Amino acid sequence: MAKDVLYLGDTAYTQQACYLTGIMTHFDISFDYVPSDQSPSDEQLTDDYKTIILSDYPSKMLSKKQVDLIVEKVNLGTGLIMFGGWETYVGLDGGYQNTAIADILPVQMKDSDDRNNNYWPCFVDKQADHAILADLPFDTNASTVGGFNAFEPKPHAKTLLHANMNNASKDSSGSFTLTYTKSVPLLVVDESTNANIACFASDVAPHWVGPFVDWGDSRLSAQAPEGEAIEVGNWYAQFFANLVKWSAKTI
Amino acid sequence: MAKDVLYLGDTAYTQQACYLTGIMTHFDISFDYVPSDQSPSDEQLTDDYKTIILSDYPSKMLSKKQVDLIVEKVNLGTGLIMFGGWETYVGLDGGYQNTAIADILPVQMKDSDDRNNNYWPCFVDKQADHAILADLPFDTNASTVGGFNAFEPKPHAKTLLHANMNNASKDSSGSFTLTYTKSVPLLVVDESTNANIACFASDVAPHWVGPFVDWGDSRLSAQAPEGEAIEVGNWYAQFFANLVKWSAKTI
Repeated sequence: MAKDVLYLGDTAYTQQACYLTGIMTHFDISFDYVPSDQSPSDEQLTDDYKTIILSDYPSKMLSKKQVDLIVEKVNLGTGLIMFGGWETYVGLDGGYQNTAIADILPVQMKDSDDRNNNYWPCFVDKQADHAILADLPFDTNASTVGGFNAFEPKPHAKTLLHANMNNASKDSSGSFTLTYTKSVPLLVVDESTNANIACFASDVAPHWVGPFVDWGDSRLSAQAPEGEAIEVGNWYAQFFANLVKWSAKTI
Repeated sequence: MAKDVLYLGDTAYTQQACYLTGIMTHFDISFDYVPSDQSPSDEQLTDDYKTIILSDYPSKMLSKKQVDLIVEKVNLGTGLIMFGGWETYVGLDGGYQNTAIADILPVQMKDSDDRNNNYWPCFVDKQADHAILADLPFDTNASTVGGFNAFEPKPHAKTLLHANMNNASKDSSGSFTLTYTKSVPLLVVDESTNANIACFASDVAPHWVGPFVDWGDSRLSAQAPEGEAIEVGNWYAQFFANLVKWSAKTI
């Protein structure tokens, strides 16, 4: 029987991928993993995974046939999540704007480099209630991300999170104050088809995840069988577990 | 002739160490590098480096003799910088509180795990003018770090930067507001001896460096000969270059 998730990208098991593999292991989500410098087999893409995750996985690692296999699976109801990064969406080396995957994502990508690296506070800003966000204290205990790919939601999509961007400066009293600049889409989902599809604009791993990796009121330690140990915030881990489970239709 | 810097730690050339090796390459600071899973030779520690950098480098990788050689060099005027992380200061696996290096650092370490992982805005807060901080817009263009090791300055030390910590929440109008909680030492220096010694509580690399890695009004691309390419904020890079040069007495 196929596992819940086919997870492609985030460099390697012992590098960035240790975050999401650690989270999935902790929450009993089964997965197969393909590192960023390897391609899946065509056969693997015909397996009945509940969802497919592309995260910092250059589109050039997929043949046209493999892209078509992914699109076909998603059209039949398999979930799909794209996480942001320098090698997803457009990025430095993502290249998804020129693939058939662009047509099934609920966001409109840019034509050229869509990376936003932000040194100022970029708050994770909840826009709507949803199972992915349930019981998580976005408003009362706000956290920030470091960077994201810029995209716009398509008309049928639902934007669940914004990145709320602010300049920060020190005033004459020595306090830091925020000046709001703009909000952009951070999490966009599509529930209008057979499949649950999500686009997250930031990364699940450093550096773009920023301080959000430590979002929590307790620490969560986890480790996938072949990965490195991680220690992260419990709310951060719950959010990404929710997102994967929603896409896999297991919540 | 010895190079400017002996740099130990930050995992490997192609991992976290690509940040500082990239910066030093860009700013023409010569260095030798020792990865976190290797020990220097005793001979190397008798070379006339201008400064020694320990960054996420477990103290167990140094023999007692090697610790004594470092202390001896610093007493004779060689600079010393310790960057924070899970394997520096006390950390998970730093262990420096029980070494002779604790005596020559300008900070008092804790006795047990000193890691602080923060999901809230932790501003880099300038406390005094100094060559390391010159011409960098800390107050007008504030940035944040993700985490740090907790320590206290010793009486003769000078605290140049605080981490200014704030809770953040969304108010009824949808704006994010800050509530100041406390400030802790982020950069402490010692100019009272022959050597220029600095303790930076956060990390030069993700994840603890947080959004500060992108601090800048332009992007800086750099790559050490054996490292990975980095693309970071120009002010971030200038700050760490200044810090290394100050410790090496080349500014």
